[in-house]
Amino acid sequence: MVTSVGRSFDRMWSDLEPIGRSGQTGGYRRHAWTRTDHDLREWFVGECAARDLEVVEDRAGNQWAWWGDPDTTPGVVIGSHLDSVPDGGAFDGPLGVVSALATVDALRAAGVTPHVPLGVVNFVDEEGARFGVACAGSRIITGVLTADRARSLTDADGVSMAQAWRSAGRDPATMGPDPETLSRVGCFVELHVEQGKALALAPDGSDDLTDPARAVAIGTDIWPHGRWRIDIPGEANHAGTTRLEDRHDAMLGLASVVQSARSYAAGLGCVATVGKVLVEPGGVNAIPSHVTAWLDARGADEDAVRATVAGVSADAAALGAGTTEESWTPTTRFDPSLVSRLSGILPGAPLLGTGAGHDAGILATHGVPSAMLFVRNPTGVSHSPAESARAEDCHAGVDALTAVVTELCNGRTTTPMSDGR
Amino acid sequence: MVTSVGRSFDRMWSDLEPIGRSGQTGGYRRHAWTRTDHDLREWFVGECAARDLEVVEDRAGNQWAWWGDPDTTPGVVIGSHLDSVPDGGAFDGPLGVVSALATVDALRAAGVTPHVPLGVVNFVDEEGARFGVACAGSRIITGVLTADRARSLTDADGVSMAQAWRSAGRDPATMGPDPETLSRVGCFVELHVEQGKALALAPDGSDDLTDPARAVAIGTDIWPHGRWRIDIPGEANHAGTTRLEDRHDAMLGLASVVQSARSYAAGLGCVATVGKVLVEPGGVNAIPSHVTAWLDARGADEDAVRATVAGVSADAAALGAGTTEESWTPTTRFDPSLVSRLSGILPGAPLLGTGAGHDAGILATHGVPSAMLFVRNPTGVSHSPAESARAEDCHAGVDALTAVVTELCNGRTTTPMSDGR
Repeated sequence: MVTSVGRSFDRMWSDLEPIGRSGQTGGYRRHAWTRTDHDLREWFVGECAARDLEVVEDRAGNQWAWWGDPDTTPGVVIGSHLDSVPDGGAFDGPLGVVSALATVDALRAAGVTPHVPLGVVNFVDEEGARFGVACAGSRIITGVLTADRARSLTDADGVSMAQAWRSAGRDPATMGPDPETLSRVGCFVELHVEQGKALALAPDGSDDLTDPARAVAIGTDIWPHGRWRIDIPGEANHAGTTRLEDRHDAMLGLASVVQSARSYAAGLGCVATVGKVLVEPGGVNAIPSHVTAWLDARGADEDAVRATVAGVSADAAALGAGTTEESWTPTTRFDPSLVSRLSGILPGAPLLGTGAGHDAGILATHGVPSAMLFVRNPTGVSHSPAESARAEDCHAGVDALTAVVTELCNGRTTTPMSDGR
Repeated sequence: MVTSVGRSFDRMWSDLEPIGRSGQTGGYRRHAWTRTDHDLREWFVGECAARDLEVVEDRAGNQWAWWGDPDTTPGVVIGSHLDSVPDGGAFDGPLGVVSALATVDALRAAGVTPHVPLGVVNFVDEEGARFGVACAGSRIITGVLTADRARSLTDADGVSMAQAWRSAGRDPATMGPDPETLSRVGCFVELHVEQGKALALAPDGSDDLTDPARAVAIGTDIWPHGRWRIDIPGEANHAGTTRLEDRHDAMLGLASVVQSARSYAAGLGCVATVGKVLVEPGGVNAIPSHVTAWLDARGADEDAVRATVAGVSADAAALGAGTTEESWTPTTRFDPSLVSRLSGILPGAPLLGTGAGHDAGILATHGVPSAMLFVRNPTGVSHSPAESARAEDCHAGVDALTAVVTELCNGRTTTPMSDGR
């Protein structure tokens, strides 16, 4: 690691550290279009200005800083997002933005000037923590999320995204698809902390944080994933006076559904989670008359995910419960030729699929050649204050990203941005 | 059944029917110190006035109508409450008030004038649906619930009971214990719909609604009951990227606790219910980091209830979960000599314990000779719009209450009110 770049990385990291951090939980509450989000966006503008990069905003409020003119030829874009889930960790998102800025430092320290434009992006509202739609910034500019729907989304206090824009001094009428912005993106490489611990395990399954060849991985695809609502019926009755044999207790149905989900997922090599439930009437002395449970299921293999959900759904149906699909996203494959180039630039880097959605996945689905780099996570914990990555692995991530950008911008092979879309 | 009394009962019943009934669910939302509660209280005053009975309110807002002067000698009191749980049924409470008023009609139709004062009571806020404390009216006048604590209780909108009193035109400074009111109560007999289906079952366990000897039962005691909070730990993590083997999912702990509670209760002849849970962080794509579950456990036998909770608590501890006792009420026995007199007046009436709390239990604990009558419930369903009782059984309840009042007020044996306390 070049020391001056490492120092720059560390300084940016410590500047960001207090912004939006809860004193109670130690977790981050960096939600879109809040005062905290404003501070983060100002920080981004300041860091770009310090590097003589001007920031332009697109029609969703995503921030783009260009080194070179992307209107002459599409550029290579790196970056990620700065927002967080409620009580999230410090790395999910910011690691990619800080690493991208440090990569600019590294190129300059090495005297490299990109032959094609280099962009650094901060996507807005990636987590969807406030308005409920993940990757809202990339979904809006690609048109996957219409401006009308986005403007009418509301937060927990009933504030719409349109109102939040106005409070942030923005005109919600300007929101919408932005093909001009997207035409500037020849390819997008998003660096992100790993959200599992595949890189922290040796081939024999033991913990191993020392293997330098496993500090950074190349993302190959985003797993198929979906969300299902399971409505479990019961019968309201008095908790003190109703005999066990006369009960129809929806909470027992929930217990069964939760265990069924874990069992099918384990058997089929997927993951399945019941993270949110609604119990009615919800009184301590009332037998639950209805439980609504939400099932999140994902996995490397679409058929296995489908079979997991079918199994849970069949077990639930035996209890009289109905299962409704709320969303389904098939496998998102990152651009094969771009992934192949990254493998050539980073020989020996592991190839990883991921169960999480990312802006890189939205852009990939839209046809923008996209890929990801993952930095080793010692515990695998994410979306939690305990989320972490070691400093040396973060620095290795900057090295990898620098190598990738150097090759993509100035390499002898055809750059992806000349491939067109 | 005397026809004119039956008609009076049915007319009162149909007058009450629309008050506070939800058009959506068909359930009742009759909560303390609301507009609906005001309408119910006005209805009570009107029915009493039509019988030349003046209503006086005590220092908790309970309404008392006296036939005769209870300041000369303590009287026999009958009645119940008019409020409901959220989306409750029509019978829990109102059946006792309407039956008490119909009993006055029956005495008059028979030309009986009580030799000791007869009181009809409407207890306020028995369900505690709005401010969270059941039997608030009887708890306040007996001093079990202090005025300071009662005034500061808040509803779901943050409105305190003190504010609710002011909105209802009452001065919360007048709230408090009311020994004068209690000194007028020689004994209290609360008629209530059964909240289980013991009376609707023949000795062989089959449904039987025809046996006239099982239309009305005498309450002997209120089961010991309590409430426990179980804190189930987990670890926040991403639902898409965390391997099953790396998870610590509090929702799986909940599933286990729910099944454990049912299993111990069944084995020990108690009832146990998990009716309320709080899942954190509660996101569809977040592995639950903490689940708080509330356990309600009751049964005829104290040791069995304690053993049920101890079993659940031990199983929960094996998952790292802590169990905290939030409340515990030992067996409340109704006055043995009063119960014995009722058995003499209603020969062959079954004797029943109950798992539900009642104002009669609060008064009994305070030393007021109290007892209950239960009217058969064909389905056992209570605290639900489906709660029901057949008209002929309701009329049989009025007959039973009339026989009880006649004997207690005018019988040859010493009346309970001369027993003193």
